[in-house]
Amino acid sequence: MVVKTKKLYIYECALRRFADIWMEAKSQSIMLESYAMNGGDGPYSYAQNSLYQRGLMEAAKGMINEEIAMKLDIQELSLAASEPIRIADLGCSCGPNTILAVQHIIDALKRKFQSHSTPEFQVFFNDHVSNDFNSLFASLSVLGKQYYAASAPGSFHGRLFPKATVHFVYSSYALNWLSKVPERVVDKTDPAWNQGRIHYTGAPKEVLEAYSDQYAKDIDSFLQARVKELAPGGLMALLIPAVPDVITDPQITIGSEFKLVGSCLMDMAKLGMVSEAKVDTFNLPIYFTYPKELRQIIEENGCFSIERMEVLNIPKQHIVMPDLRQRMLYIRAILEPLIKNHFGNEIIDQLFEIYSRKLSESSIFLNPECQKTTAIFLLLKPI
Amino acid sequence: MVVKTKKLYIYECALRRFADIWMEAKSQSIMLESYAMNGGDGPYSYAQNSLYQRGLMEAAKGMINEEIAMKLDIQELSLAASEPIRIADLGCSCGPNTILAVQHIIDALKRKFQSHSTPEFQVFFNDHVSNDFNSLFASLSVLGKQYYAASAPGSFHGRLFPKATVHFVYSSYALNWLSKVPERVVDKTDPAWNQGRIHYTGAPKEVLEAYSDQYAKDIDSFLQARVKELAPGGLMALLIPAVPDVITDPQITIGSEFKLVGSCLMDMAKLGMVSEAKVDTFNLPIYFTYPKELRQIIEENGCFSIERMEVLNIPKQHIVMPDLRQRMLYIRAILEPLIKNHFGNEIIDQLFEIYSRKLSESSIFLNPECQKTTAIFLLLKPI
Repeated sequence: MVVKTKKLYIYECALRRFADIWMEAKSQSIMLESYAMNGGDGPYSYAQNSLYQRGLMEAAKGMINEEIAMKLDIQELSLAASEPIRIADLGCSCGPNTILAVQHIIDALKRKFQSHSTPEFQVFFNDHVSNDFNSLFASLSVLGKQYYAASAPGSFHGRLFPKATVHFVYSSYALNWLSKVPERVVDKTDPAWNQGRIHYTGAPKEVLEAYSDQYAKDIDSFLQARVKELAPGGLMALLIPAVPDVITDPQITIGSEFKLVGSCLMDMAKLGMVSEAKVDTFNLPIYFTYPKELRQIIEENGCFSIERMEVLNIPKQHIVMPDLRQRMLYIRAILEPLIKNHFGNEIIDQLFEIYSRKLSESSIFLNPECQKTTAIFLLLKPI
Repeated sequence: MVVKTKKLYIYECALRRFADIWMEAKSQSIMLESYAMNGGDGPYSYAQNSLYQRGLMEAAKGMINEEIAMKLDIQELSLAASEPIRIADLGCSCGPNTILAVQHIIDALKRKFQSHSTPEFQVFFNDHVSNDFNSLFASLSVLGKQYYAASAPGSFHGRLFPKATVHFVYSSYALNWLSKVPERVVDKTDPAWNQGRIHYTGAPKEVLEAYSDQYAKDIDSFLQARVKELAPGGLMALLIPAVPDVITDPQITIGSEFKLVGSCLMDMAKLGMVSEAKVDTFNLPIYFTYPKELRQIIEENGCFSIERMEVLNIPKQHIVMPDLRQRMLYIRAILEPLIKNHFGNEIIDQLFEIYSRKLSESSIFLNPECQKTTAIFLLLKPI
């Protein structure tokens, strides 16, 4: 009888603990929400507004092909009998981009294995817990894919997979996301306090430094985690939006759109629609590195050799950007969850109306020759 | 120039194809929706209303312990250096049950590996694409788990994993779900047409036969898929709600709750709240096997040896069922998505109000001695 009572007690405790965890998870999920792209397939979704990112991916296709053909060493992979090749797309989001990219990688791997017996493929789609994996898997289930699909939700700044189990890691347009907003930029007593702005673009150099420090830490954790997860002979292809080493201001518009969103928020603050303090505590956890900096971080980390590093210059307007509304939607799909989470749902429509108006008058939009961005293609191999 | 135009054309075609796929996925996802449990953690969620299933799991804990201790052969598993142990929970749903079960299996495996170096663990959570994996992973991210978690969405009646990659398969309270409603029961010209009912309980024997045939096919596909996925030395523990070989009617209530929901729908049809034709075309893809039948299916399939088969008798009321509302919610959490999908959202509240009333007057609820269900515990090993 005593035993039973004790068992019941333990059971009740476990239940209570789970109720707590559940509630905590719920609030955590709201926090995490801020980092995922807009889900679903509606007019504001990432799926419908990520053509620019697709352009980037298309540009890297050829290089991935070449690298798999030249650098992937089937002997070195030393797959056990019937072992599948495991591919991971880190920061995959939910649109068709990840499906296209993964298919492309598998096609390249199949060509590579042509003369050998082709192994099975298992693909891990990674993004934050709140990413819309449901849409992704619903579309996969219709596509009739040539691989076993799994999701591995969580932050790619930490470990995601058991050691030495992944053979090809891919990440596109994701490593510009920081693991968090640098603490210094929301600290009123710090010279890096980012008052009246939501990003480092146009901010004092201390703000940029705080972002840059956070980025270096984040890339270091990312590489530390990946080197453990990659199987011997594995490769990692990264496509990272960036700025050139030497910035000639009018050429580069990559951060100025965020600056413009920040100024719209400040306009709304002046009209009393949001509080200024709320704008001061809002910062985008996004950083655009430049080739020299990224090379230095990778070299100092020491886990990977740089097998290839190329700077891609992509004129935005040639891809999807001539239309004002599309240009607005592209930024909205990326920022909406973050803004919603901090300011609430109510301000979104009005904010992006103001943004559209300001964008239409801005040189970012008016001067098509200025619409240049840069991305870095990297092929890394564990040392 | 010609090349560019051709490229643009291919690009456009690809885009259009994706738009189609996306739409198809969306409609498919609505179809699939019907098979997942109620998501989230609200009052109608599966997470909050699956204590009965937890009771079942608790009952099987000891057996899983024993079987891992006795039947799992570490030599036979022959893990490669640094290879993780991969565990899959098939039909995991989204509540805490799956987290508890997986933790329990890992604890048992760790005890087993005590004298060896403990490998890492990777856990695959499987359920239908529309399952609320977000809630599951949000709670996992808070728990600080001891394994790498992934989801592998899709039907467990087909292949989910590359060959020979999973070491321990677990499935609890999931193999009572059929892959689809048997075609014969919605065919007006067939003697198995299930007019005015939503399940085989209380139906002519042809209906039961149609269900039973579908079940045999489904379990066969399930076993065929699993035997390919299990690594050498791997094990599979199944916990399957069932009825006894010999049914004495008043003892068993497992299907009579569905019969009662069916009669409520027919009441609503008579009041003109739903059409009778709509009820006639609605059937639950749920079947409760009995030990003899299940043994026969497994033996005929021939892929697995039955290492252990035990019938658990679980008196429902001892677990969570004395309260009428909880009893109603338990059925609602399971059936709501299916009913919503077929009849629309509007009828749900009223249906379960009527159900509560009828349940309160029913012997299912009034006679606590009758609240017995059976579950079969199975430990299978690939032959």
